[in-house]
Amino acid sequence: MPFSLDNRLEADSLFVTSYDDIQIRVMNDARYVWVLLVPEIANVTELHDLPAQKQQLLMQLAASIGAGIKTTPMPHVPAIAKINTALIGNIVNQLHLHIVGRHPDDAAWPAPVWGMGSAIKLDEDTINQRRQLVHKIMDMFQEN
Amino acid sequence: MPFSLDNRLEADSLFVTSYDDIQIRVMNDARYVWVLLVPEIANVTELHDLPAQKQQLLMQLAASIGAGIKTTPMPHVPAIAKINTALIGNIVNQLHLHIVGRHPDDAAWPAPVWGMGSAIKLDEDTINQRRQLVHKIMDMFQEN
Repeated sequence: MPFSLDNRLEADSLFVTSYDDIQIRVMNDARYVWVLLVPEIANVTELHDLPAQKQQLLMQLAASIGAGIKTTPMPHVPAIAKINTALIGNIVNQLHLHIVGRHPDDAAWPAPVWGMGSAIKLDEDTINQRRQLVHKIMDMFQEN
Repeated sequence: MPFSLDNRLEADSLFVTSYDDIQIRVMNDARYVWVLLVPEIANVTELHDLPAQKQQLLMQLAASIGAGIKTTPMPHVPAIAKINTALIGNIVNQLHLHIVGRHPDDAAWPAPVWGMGSAIKLDEDTINQRRQLVHKIMDMFQEN
């Protein structure tokens, strides 16, 4: 069966770009700067189910996106204190990796973000800012 | 300043072995099969702060330990349904990676485990089982 994005991931996040068949999406939640990586491979649930090369790429992307979120000043976002990087998937079991910029004034700090409260949808300006952030990070990634 | 294990990580987990200066520890919590990886590098907080080679090794270890937890039957532990792999560190900011075996009857399912309830200390038999599991996984890791 070919890859098809899980309905819940589709509903909760916005596609920005892809790199080597890994979708780079932004969670539609104004409470956090939150990027989602989804490899376009059918029936993959666990990190160890991915081919080794894809595992490595996923982690390189995670590290670079985390660094970009932490070091890029963004309008209306306090300085990012910590990056949370995680594969959970207890509810949506299609493999997806979260990269979340956290700060002490955010809605869940210091708890993890998953399952805490409800998403606040991004407005158009913020969607554009998040898209620009991801594109800037990916431009740097591809130069290295 | 040389590496020194964070006091809270030390109190909450048990050293099992190390591989290329990455400590492999077991969380002292009978509610979950829960392994912790801690690179012995001072002042590292984020995945992207690690040298690239160490990032890769950490992720290879995470994937192999996750696979081992998921596929190894353990006494008194239901079949593992999902591996949760995460770098959070909002409270303890010394870089540490969690690998947690989850199942629908566990204490936090489907929520993440962090910050949920209180640890139940492992008894001696279970400590030995967890140690054996880690050693078995690492024997296989080093053969590959």
